[in-house]
Amino acid sequence: MVTRLGPGAEFDLIRRFLAGERLPASDPPPAGVRVGPGDDCAVVAGEGIAITVDMTVEDVHFRRGWIGPAEIGYHAAASAISDLAAMAARPIGILAAVALGPGDEAEVGPALMDGIRAAAAAADATLLGGDLVRSPGPLVVDIVAVGEAPAPVLRSGARPGDEVWVTGTLGAAAAAVAAWLEGGTPPPAARGAFANPTPRVREARWLAERAELTAMVDLSDGIAGDAGHIAAASGVRVVIRAAAVPIAGPAAARPDALQLAAAGGEDYELCFTAAPGTVEPFVAGFRARYGIPLTKVGQVEAGQGAVVLDDRGEPVALAAFQHWSRP
Amino acid sequence: MVTRLGPGAEFDLIRRFLAGERLPASDPPPAGVRVGPGDDCAVVAGEGIAITVDMTVEDVHFRRGWIGPAEIGYHAAASAISDLAAMAARPIGILAAVALGPGDEAEVGPALMDGIRAAAAAADATLLGGDLVRSPGPLVVDIVAVGEAPAPVLRSGARPGDEVWVTGTLGAAAAAVAAWLEGGTPPPAARGAFANPTPRVREARWLAERAELTAMVDLSDGIAGDAGHIAAASGVRVVIRAAAVPIAGPAAARPDALQLAAAGGEDYELCFTAAPGTVEPFVAGFRARYGIPLTKVGQVEAGQGAVVLDDRGEPVALAAFQHWSRP
Repeated sequence: MVTRLGPGAEFDLIRRFLAGERLPASDPPPAGVRVGPGDDCAVVAGEGIAITVDMTVEDVHFRRGWIGPAEIGYHAAASAISDLAAMAARPIGILAAVALGPGDEAEVGPALMDGIRAAAAAADATLLGGDLVRSPGPLVVDIVAVGEAPAPVLRSGARPGDEVWVTGTLGAAAAAVAAWLEGGTPPPAARGAFANPTPRVREARWLAERAELTAMVDLSDGIAGDAGHIAAASGVRVVIRAAAVPIAGPAAARPDALQLAAAGGEDYELCFTAAPGTVEPFVAGFRARYGIPLTKVGQVEAGQGAVVLDDRGEPVALAAFQHWSRP
Repeated sequence: MVTRLGPGAEFDLIRRFLAGERLPASDPPPAGVRVGPGDDCAVVAGEGIAITVDMTVEDVHFRRGWIGPAEIGYHAAASAISDLAAMAARPIGILAAVALGPGDEAEVGPALMDGIRAAAAAADATLLGGDLVRSPGPLVVDIVAVGEAPAPVLRSGARPGDEVWVTGTLGAAAAAVAAWLEGGTPPPAARGAFANPTPRVREARWLAERAELTAMVDLSDGIAGDAGHIAAASGVRVVIRAAAVPIAGPAAARPDALQLAAAGGEDYELCFTAAPGTVEPFVAGFRARYGIPLTKVGQVEAGQGAVVLDDRGEPVALAAFQHWSRP
């Protein structure tokens, strides 16, 4: 699968990166892969190819003091693969473009690449290629995730009357970030949720095969904001009940629990709308299979925008998740 | 084609970026595009989907004093699309991940995106999506180019006895960089070659439909280095005759002409190998159609590595192109 590259320091690092993917010539290539890493492009085939790109920048999306290079790579790749989950696509592979800062070649680079590869492998994605360049300062990791999506679940199909559901629990990763920003050390469950998130690629396909999903997004910016993408794309209003939001343990232990769970970001759980009654029959089976809950958190109405309401039906004030304004 | 996004400053900029691509609902989507920008992923279809990623970093690949933001975007997109040309793929679209530095939101960002869109349009590629993030310092532009490649020309098919050919003339972009590094101002033709390179996507398909191409790469690092990729992938030796290398005017005017033309980088011309005698009949037609020469520069032999030989058959000493060691 791996084409040989010419000489040069940059290619040595790419070679090392690709080494973990090298397969005996007798092995069949991974499903959907016609040309793997090492040529000018990768070539994939399938019935509808889903492609997404996700850029992670040091001191904007993470700090080196928070997580190690392998975790930085894992987080970057998992967050890109999560976009495939949001369409119920089957992951095929990833391409990784990495800019390494001064002195990062010897140890940070290889560890980062190990983390990228681990996240890809966890989602049954192979490494299809990439680009490796120098950065004058910050580490930059840009991941392209590629999957097969014969029947993608879009953001635009929600209809008034649909139910709103979410996988897993929310706010653990944001609790870790909050602890770091306060100068503290996050509890292990919170740290792990941030460092090694699980893109719900299998869960998404399992659900799409059973329930009547009408729209779906993955939660990178918090459900309060991301549900707004469904509302805007579908031309509907999405109403989330605050009391129904499943708050992760590390967030629940904090006074700003709802803020973290609804607008904290970095959860990489799925929020989807579905025709009424078509999800409920599968809640128990989902939990048994994947070990995480499936929770009905609201409904779709005529109108526009997404809103989180308290028990009296009043909108809850939440600070929007904003990478742009983060320190 | 464009799904509506939720509110937020980041989305405003993406919206502005995508505005140039917005089509009336009655228009047919571009060929091969099933889901355009604005959802979690783009979805494309075709007989073999070629995907490549190319990252450009400020002060590594360019300096802001050299070219303006629209040119930075154009160059970045063109260099990624050039990888599609190297496989004789038909461009479908691009995804653009951009990290903007402090203060870049108002003017640099939109101009950069205009340049990206212009390079895509020049290659008949549509904008499929992207990611927009903040950078603590350098501008970073990462372009994913996507095309249809039912019969990709790989790097690995060169055989002893094949001829080695190159499109266009070489060294103009490197002459511009050399002038800048010397503190001077490059001549317009050199500057333009660097700022607005032309990926040879149409030329590649035209050639692949006529001659018997066995391997191809695009020239991003100079023919002396890039021919080494064909040699390594094909398990052959590639011999380039220095006297045959078509040197661009701005490079020819300098004392380091051969160094710039053979190892200067950033040409984005194509180097390919072909079965003997299968290209010659099309040289005149190619020039008439595309306005650039097609030049036989060497041959493929048994052995390994790529070498540039002078008239006495002695290897020419060339400094390798190295982004890693550039100031």
